[in-house]
Amino acid sequence: MVVKNQIKLVKSLQQKKYRNQHGMFVVEGAKSVSEFLGSDYKAEKVYATKENILDLDPSDIELVSHKEMEQMSGLHSPNSVLGVFQISATKPIDFEDWILALDDVRDPGNLGTIIRLCDWYGIKHLVCSEHTVDCYNPKVLQATMGSLTRVNAGYTDLESFLAKAEVPVYGTFMTGVSVYSEKLPKGGILVMGNEANGICKQVEALLTTKISIPQYGNQTTESLNVASATAVFLNEIRRI
Amino acid sequence: MVVKNQIKLVKSLQQKKYRNQHGMFVVEGAKSVSEFLGSDYKAEKVYATKENILDLDPSDIELVSHKEMEQMSGLHSPNSVLGVFQISATKPIDFEDWILALDDVRDPGNLGTIIRLCDWYGIKHLVCSEHTVDCYNPKVLQATMGSLTRVNAGYTDLESFLAKAEVPVYGTFMTGVSVYSEKLPKGGILVMGNEANGICKQVEALLTTKISIPQYGNQTTESLNVASATAVFLNEIRRI
Repeated sequence: MVVKNQIKLVKSLQQKKYRNQHGMFVVEGAKSVSEFLGSDYKAEKVYATKENILDLDPSDIELVSHKEMEQMSGLHSPNSVLGVFQISATKPIDFEDWILALDDVRDPGNLGTIIRLCDWYGIKHLVCSEHTVDCYNPKVLQATMGSLTRVNAGYTDLESFLAKAEVPVYGTFMTGVSVYSEKLPKGGILVMGNEANGICKQVEALLTTKISIPQYGNQTTESLNVASATAVFLNEIRRI
Repeated sequence: MVVKNQIKLVKSLQQKKYRNQHGMFVVEGAKSVSEFLGSDYKAEKVYATKENILDLDPSDIELVSHKEMEQMSGLHSPNSVLGVFQISATKPIDFEDWILALDDVRDPGNLGTIIRLCDWYGIKHLVCSEHTVDCYNPKVLQATMGSLTRVNAGYTDLESFLAKAEVPVYGTFMTGVSVYSEKLPKGGILVMGNEANGICKQVEALLTTKISIPQYGNQTTESLNVASATAVFLNEIRRI
C-alpha cells in the first residue's frame, strides 16, 4: 500500500519543473530499471506489481497494486516495474575523445535516439544547450533504453562552452564539406542543430569546420532527420 | 462549406481499413501537400483554410473553415492545408541498384524516417513485408516530409519476393560480418528487421550474407534503433 503523497510525488516527476525541484526522475520497465540499478545512479525507490522480478532482492522492492502503478506511471499501458532515481551531477569532460554537442534539439524521441547512438559509438560526453529537451523526460528515457546510464549528459550555455574549447569544433550543415573527404581528428566536438532551424548563428560563428553528408543522386529539398544525421556522422567518426 | 459526408470520409482515411476501401490517403501541411501535388500521385481534393497558399491555382482549392479543418484532420493542431490523394499502383522494381526490404517494421516514426533516408540516399524501391506498418499511415507521412513521392514503396510476401530474387540479399544481424570490411556490390537487397525481434527465421534462411555495424568500445546489451541502423547501412552502401 503506497500512501497518496508518494503517488502524487512520482506522478509529478513526469514534469521537468518537479524533477528539478526534487532532483529525481522516473524510469519505467524492468530492463531499463535494471540497467539504472546497475549504474552510478542512486535509486530512491523501486515499485513493482509482483515480487519475483529482475535480479533484485525482494526487500528492495515496494509492492504496489496495478491501480497504484497506473496512477504513478506516465504510460498508457504501465509496466510491472517503475524506479525513482536521483539526478546525478555531471562528470568532468574528457577532451581527448569526441564529444557530441546539441544546439536546441527539441524532440524527445530524437534526443533518446541520439543518446542510444552515443552509447553504441562510445561517445561518453553529450553537451546539451539549455533549450535542448530534458534528458530525464520520460519520452527520452523510453527511447534511450537504459543507454543514459553510460552517457554523461549535461546542460550548459553552449556558446560559452564552445568559446572556451581548445579542440576543433565541427558543425553539420547542408552546405558543409563532405564528411567522406574530410580527415577527421581523433578528438573534437561535433555540433548537431535544432530540428527546424539547424545550428544558430551564434554557435555557427564558433565552428572550426562545417561538414555535411552528401546527398546521393538528385538533390531534393529534404534534409536528414537530426537523429539519422547523428547516426551517420558518429559512424564516420568511428569507422575504421 | 463542406458537406458532412466529405468530412466523414476524410476523417475515416486516418484508418488503414478505409484507406484501402477508398484507395485514398490524406497528406497534411502545405509543404508536404505541395510535394505530392508536384508528383505522380493524383490529387482527389485539396482543402485549405485560406486562399493564397502554395503555388496553387485558387480554383483547385476548396476553402474550409478552421472548424471543418479540425474535423477532417488527424492532428491536434491542424495545418492550413490538407490534401486527399489516390493510392497509386507500385512501379516495377529495378534490380540493378540497391533495394531496401523491411521485415515487419511496426513503428510509424521508424518507417517515416526510413522512407526519408531512402530519398536522401537515392534508394528508389522499398519492399515491405505485409505486416510492416502502412506507408500511408498519417504518422508515417508526418515523418517522411514528402519523401514518399520519390520512393516506390510496396507491400508483398517478403519470403516469396526474396526467394525469387536473383541478386545478393544482405540481412542485418548483431553477429554478422562488419559492414566496414564487407565489399558491397553495386546492387542487391538490404533487409532490415522488426524493432523487437529483428529478421524472422524464414527470411534469415533466404539471406546471402549477414552484416552488422560494429559497436565501438565496450559491448553493451543495447542494439541500434532500426532507423539509425538503416541510416548507417545506406550511408555505407552509398559512401565513396
